[in-house]
Amino acid sequence: MNTFAVLGGDLRFVYLAGALAEDGFSVITAGFDHTDLPHCVTGCTRVDQAAKGADFVILPLPVTTDGTTLNAPFSRSTLPLADMVSCLHAGQTVLGGQLQPALLQELQENGVRAFDYFSREELIVQNAVPTAEGALQLALEELPVTLAGASCLVTGFGRVSKALCRLLYALGANVTVAARRVSDRALAGTLGYAAVPLTALADAGAFDVVFNTVPALIFDEPRLRALAPSTLIIDLASRPGGVDFAAAAGLGLKTIWALSLPGRVAPKSAGIILKDTVLNILKEEGEAV
Amino acid sequence: MNTFAVLGGDLRFVYLAGALAEDGFSVITAGFDHTDLPHCVTGCTRVDQAAKGADFVILPLPVTTDGTTLNAPFSRSTLPLADMVSCLHAGQTVLGGQLQPALLQELQENGVRAFDYFSREELIVQNAVPTAEGALQLALEELPVTLAGASCLVTGFGRVSKALCRLLYALGANVTVAARRVSDRALAGTLGYAAVPLTALADAGAFDVVFNTVPALIFDEPRLRALAPSTLIIDLASRPGGVDFAAAAGLGLKTIWALSLPGRVAPKSAGIILKDTVLNILKEEGEAV
Amino acid sequence: MNTFAVLGGDLRFVYLAGALAEDGFSVITAGFDHTDLPHCVTGCTRVDQAAKGADFVILPLPVTTDGTTLNAPFSRSTLPLADMVSCLHAGQTVLGGQLQPALLQELQENGVRAFDYFSREELIVQNAVPTAEGALQLALEELPVTLAGASCLVTGFGRVSKALCRLLYALGANVTVAARRVSDRALAGTLGYAAVPLTALADAGAFDVVFNTVPALIFDEPRLRALAPSTLIIDLASRPGGVDFAAAAGLGLKTIWALSLPGRVAPKSAGIILKDTVLNILKEEGEAV
Amino acid sequence: MNTFAVLGGDLRFVYLAGALAEDGFSVITAGFDHTDLPHCVTGCTRVDQAAKGADFVILPLPVTTDGTTLNAPFSRSTLPLADMVSCLHAGQTVLGGQLQPALLQELQENGVRAFDYFSREELIVQNAVPTAEGALQLALEELPVTLAGASCLVTGFGRVSKALCRLLYALGANVTVAARRVSDRALAGTLGYAAVPLTALADAGAFDVVFNTVPALIFDEPRLRALAPSTLIIDLASRPGGVDFAAAAGLGLKTIWALSLPGRVAPKSAGIILKDTVLNILKEEGEAV
Repeated sequence: MNTFAVLGGDLRFVYLAGALAEDGFSVITAGFDHTDLPHCVTGCTRVDQAAKGADFVILPLPVTTDGTTLNAPFSRSTLPLADMVSCLHAGQTVLGGQLQPALLQELQENGVRAFDYFSREELIVQNAVPTAEGALQLALEELPVTLAGASCLVTGFGRVSKALCRLLYALGANVTVAARRVSDRALAGTLGYAAVPLTALADAGAFDVVFNTVPALIFDEPRLRALAPSTLIIDLASRPGGVDFAAAAGLGLKTIWALSLPGRVAPKSAGIILKDTVLNILKEEGEAV
Repeated sequence: MNTFAVLGGDLRFVYLAGALAEDGFSVITAGFDHTDLPHCVTGCTRVDQAAKGADFVILPLPVTTDGTTLNAPFSRSTLPLADMVSCLHAGQTVLGGQLQPALLQELQENGVRAFDYFSREELIVQNAVPTAEGALQLALEELPVTLAGASCLVTGFGRVSKALCRLLYALGANVTVAARRVSDRALAGTLGYAAVPLTALADAGAFDVVFNTVPALIFDEPRLRALAPSTLIIDLASRPGGVDFAAAAGLGLKTIWALSLPGRVAPKSAGIILKDTVLNILKEEGEAV
Repeated sequence: MNTFAVLGGDLRFVYLAGALAEDGFSVITAGFDHTDLPHCVTGCTRVDQAAKGADFVILPLPVTTDGTTLNAPFSRSTLPLADMVSCLHAGQTVLGGQLQPALLQELQENGVRAFDYFSREELIVQNAVPTAEGALQLALEELPVTLAGASCLVTGFGRVSKALCRLLYALGANVTVAARRVSDRALAGTLGYAAVPLTALADAGAFDVVFNTVPALIFDEPRLRALAPSTLIIDLASRPGGVDFAAAAGLGLKTIWALSLPGRVAPKSAGIILKDTVLNILKEEGEAV
Repeated sequence: MNTFAVLGGDLRFVYLAGALAEDGFSVITAGFDHTDLPHCVTGCTRVDQAAKGADFVILPLPVTTDGTTLNAPFSRSTLPLADMVSCLHAGQTVLGGQLQPALLQELQENGVRAFDYFSREELIVQNAVPTAEGALQLALEELPVTLAGASCLVTGFGRVSKALCRLLYALGANVTVAARRVSDRALAGTLGYAAVPLTALADAGAFDVVFNTVPALIFDEPRLRALAPSTLIIDLASRPGGVDFAAAAGLGLKTIWALSLPGRVAPKSAGIILKDTVLNILKEEGEAV
């Protein structure tokens, strides 16, 4: 039976460890000193203990936030990346999220197979669901009106936007999509949404809530100024975000920059999505998992 | 032009006052010392000032919680019901929520027309929407999983249950309805939900979340004991509720008793629903509003 | 093991017989000379042969269309009701649709238990689904436009109307409900439909298709005259229907009176619904089926 | 004001002509001798008459089916392509569907601007809706069961498949998608559908209806043999289709090859989609339409 080591990460990785154990794998973790571990998951205090006997080593998402230590918010001690790398050996397989090129190269030079799960399509597609539910939750919490009948603008029409529009529409909101491409606007129309070009936001009417999914400065000061003062803005775009937050604050517009929603609002589902993705990679690479 | 006096109530009644003013009515309020009033709404410090020139007097929901003072959580001073009654006179029309029989009789003896808007069908039907959205919000906040794919049990199949099931199903949850009547279960089946008799809850499987809408002790200790420890319970039933809360606490089950959701999660929409209901009553009574 | 006799009826009753046989019952039929019988169903040429050994005798819907013979469109010979009645005996249970009072009384005088399944709520609720799908099919066949984006009026807001509105809305149509009751219009509003009083049809705008579910003359000549000449009218109401068909023809309005849709568009589903209803009745009456 | 000539085509092009006239353009047609023309549309008997004064000339989809004459099913006479080409002149703009390279080159040598609207994304996206509604209509017509509760397999997960799955799911069907890509199957899962690899159709269970959208031989004899004899097959793939029709016939499987559904089931909507696409092209090319 294969052994997985889960080293660091947030609550998602605790659920990931539990889900692997439920599938019958042997699972050892390190970096979760401050949390209860799921049934049949063994916790170690040291990374090298956990990693040494493992066939597959799962690293967090992102692997590191400072370049030198493992991203392990539930660990009592800091876990240097170098220690983790030095204890891995040829024949082992590492799967990490946003693996840095230098780290990837170092592992491969040691004969360790390494894969980045972050760019996998099925991860992105499935993470759009908890992201959309998290954005919905924020809107439900903040708006004084029901989403039924509310006017919602969603900028961009990628995976997150599509998932979010679907939820908003299902709740009875009036959904407007702002997208650059004619065919995206045509598709939005077939789904019951209004659609405007991104360049025509000024004419798109008034909204109770605006969701941005475009990672570029869509809502600069002139565009913010065109919004009603009661408009709620929820920015779902990764850094640098899509809103001039200083200008929004100056105009009295309530703005929420909601990053990393899957791990925050649905860590269990996010952990299971990670597990499926990791197992897909291993199967495609010929591992008998 | 008709004049409305809005006396007391929670945030919904502030929005109600604002919505009446937007419709072009003259609106005077009392009992909102601690809140900003909407545009074109005049605030008085005393109830008799606000009431004396009004054609229509709107009282809160419920009119009183202690039997002697007006329900006015935003008022600095207590507002005795007796003062309010003594300043009303023949020719005026009063609309209140859950008007007590004694109060109703006293008003009518003074020549004041009085109506209870609380039992109006269109109010109940429309309030099911903010109630359902509020229940959805609680589930999104509390569950570690996405509602997409979650297993949800809803007991009862009245208006709130129907509205809630629709939202849960639209988000991709697996919905089971527990209802007494065969025809309700048949209807649930046509909508894509599983259905079980209320007496067969024990065989209904495991759930991530249970929503109760039946105002009777459905979840007594034996039934609570049959739930998995991680089950979230959200009770939407009015007093006395449908859950043995002490037993639930003893079993470690997380339970939320969510009352008065419309006013709490969507006061603006709830205020507009109240406005529509009040105007419907007045139109049916032949008033030229 | 219990034996069922299925005497006469349309294609639904063939599927009903087959579904009972699949459930493990012994099933004998009469009145289906012109059709292949399902696996494990025995066909008789004479009604008395089929009925004599049966515990439960299922009669068609309606039992008779002329008052004297069994409604058996697939039978080569006419089957007098009197023959059928005379061969039944005490201890047997008869289940028929729209059983005439005289027939019911005669059976009961013979010691035969008799039930009418036609008025059962779960039958009505479930039959709304094939009715709505049949109405949808007619609209898809007849309209030169897609239902996505089409304007649809549905009069009445009972079970069939609710099921139909749900399908039309799901396909992206603009749905308007015309209903008498304020609370029905309020409910329609919460589901995303426009709503008008039945008395205000003239102001309701233009429609690509009108579905009537009200069994009363809603569309008299003045109301027909108010419709655009290209409007398609689909009348789902039972006799006398809701449309002045002569006036509609005179105005060049295409009108379809669609009766008995479940048996025509989805006889297998309709047969299974009948089976469920019949078994529900027997269980409630204490039979060990 | 700009003048459009609409030369040949099926019923969609009559509606296209009418929609352009409603938008205020001057519209002349040729090739519609056997049909009533919409209001404000002028019909000519000869192509050169219609084309000579037009700014924009719209040719049918496809422009020709035999390589030498215009595709004009409503014309009494044959309309040689050569005549049409010879009467066009520099400064005119031609928009056709599936314009042959040789024809395109000849036009451009004459100084005529020419565009093919068939490959436009917004046309393909929007045509998926009438195609999906047409496929739904066929299933409603042919199946003895309601789509509510029916088991449906859809092969491929492109635009038509996505639109169709959405309709089937909305009607309450159990939808299984067969797709090659892991991420497509993941996306299908987030929308509530089951998903299987195209290579695992044999294990996908039994279906009431199978819709193929893949233009490759998916259903060869072995795969057809694995289907239940009562399975309905609806092939939506363009030539060569995805079903071995001879093998299907031999196995007694009912198969419908449904081509060109938009023009057949919703010619008015299809005409409006064409109009929008043509106007989009002209706007992008700088024309003041």
